Amino acid sequence: MANDARITALAIDTSGPVAGCALLTDGKIAHLTVMNHGLTHSETIMPAVDAALSAAGLRCEDVDVFAAVAGPGSFTGVRIGVCAAKGLAHAVGRPCAAVHALEALAMNFYGFDGLCCPILDARRGQVYCAAFDMVGGMPERALEDAAQPLEEFLARLPEGRRLAFVGDGVKVHAGAVRRALGGRALIAPENLRDLRPDAACLLAAARPETWVPAQQLRPIYLRAPQAVRERERKLNR
Amino acid sequence: MANDARITALAIDTSGPVAGCALLTDGKIAHLTVMNHGLTHSETIMPAVDAALSAAGLRCEDVDVFAAVAGPGSFTGVRIGVCAAKGLAHAVGRPCAAVHALEALAMNFYGFDGLCCPILDARRGQVYCAAFDMVGGMPERALEDAAQPLEEFLARLPEGRRLAFVGDGVKVHAGAVRRALGGRALIAPENLRDLRPDAACLLAAARPETWVPAQQLRPIYLRAPQAVRERERKLNR
Repeated sequence: MANDARITALAIDTSGPVAGCALLTDGKIAHLTVMNHGLTHSETIMPAVDAALSAAGLRCEDVDVFAAVAGPGSFTGVRIGVCAAKGLAHAVGRPCAAVHALEALAMNFYGFDGLCCPILDARRGQVYCAAFDMVGGMPERALEDAAQPLEEFLARLPEGRRLAFVGDGVKVHAGAVRRALGGRALIAPENLRDLRPDAACLLAAARPETWVPAQQLRPIYLRAPQAVRERERKLNR
Repeated sequence: MANDARITALAIDTSGPVAGCALLTDGKIAHLTVMNHGLTHSETIMPAVDAALSAAGLRCEDVDVFAAVAGPGSFTGVRIGVCAAKGLAHAVGRPCAAVHALEALAMNFYGFDGLCCPILDARRGQVYCAAFDMVGGMPERALEDAAQPLEEFLARLPEGRRLAFVGDGVKVHAGAVRRALGGRALIAPENLRDLRPDAACLLAAARPETWVPAQQLRPIYLRAPQAVRERERKLNR
């Protein structure tokens, strides 16, 4: 992966149970914080951003792009991360980048010879899921995003390839995956299971063509939020 | 990887340019901090440990094992990490675990179909190096540790397999590796290049048989420190 070493990128992820931020500068990950202890993301994320910048001796003005993991994920979580990135970027007149959660997760299996299959617990008996071909290094999309029951996702996967499962859905579904796929399925160990915001930094820095003005940063939703669904149900009653 | 979810492990890594700590508890990585900004490890590591424990609502007494990345690596760096883990463990009467830096690095390529080849810049024209077979998931040793010139290491690698290169040696030697090995060589992207202390937590937690009383924790050296080499040269003169 040939990142432009001149790009300084800050990435924020609050899209799931794990919150974190990472700072890429001088072609290296200068700071990485990952927190998974049930505290409120809206309270923990800004101190983590502040600590990352201070430790690296940087200010917001030194950041070229503010990335947020924009979904799919927890609706509230996604909005916290998107708003935090927007606020920081707006304050110093820098662009934002929306990083796709499933693609960032696939970066944990860079160069794997099969498909990387991120699954996130989407509640209501569904997973947010996709599949990426990793053999060339960077994720290349093999299956489109979906919010669907695990069994439907497994039925979409091609025969004969090794499959690496990552994401918080693994915690719930590892047994079912192993029963369905046997030795073809690799379950990510804890150090590669969750999204790491340093991967989000790399994806944002590698694609300056995706950067947008702060006010245009949007969440990535695979289905309507519950409040919207309930309103529609009432209106259709 | 079937970790005992009842084990709480704290891992410290100051063995190279990157310093960090991680906390494994309840079968998940509860906190992870990685710092790579040229600050003094001896000053940054204890505040990072303190932040990890506080954020998780834990005290030193709640930790079952204190792991240190014990080398190979920077002599001073290794000693800082080993001493920090020893001090914490001794204070609360808990055991320590020495984690091998090259093996922890290999955890970044869990399940890779080829060999993972960690290379660390050992100065004096050498790399600290080894190779691990990753196809079963966890690292299985394929080549013994060495401190040797890169060319000698590359000559030891078997034909016909894909090879993933990780570690800070990649920064200096990626070009030489690609020229020698062509498309067989995969160079880790920045998010998987450096040792992550969460991998050290997993290795320590998975092997309680390696835990030792704090006073028995020892650095892993592949060659004598410079001070020792100079003393021996003087004595032999």
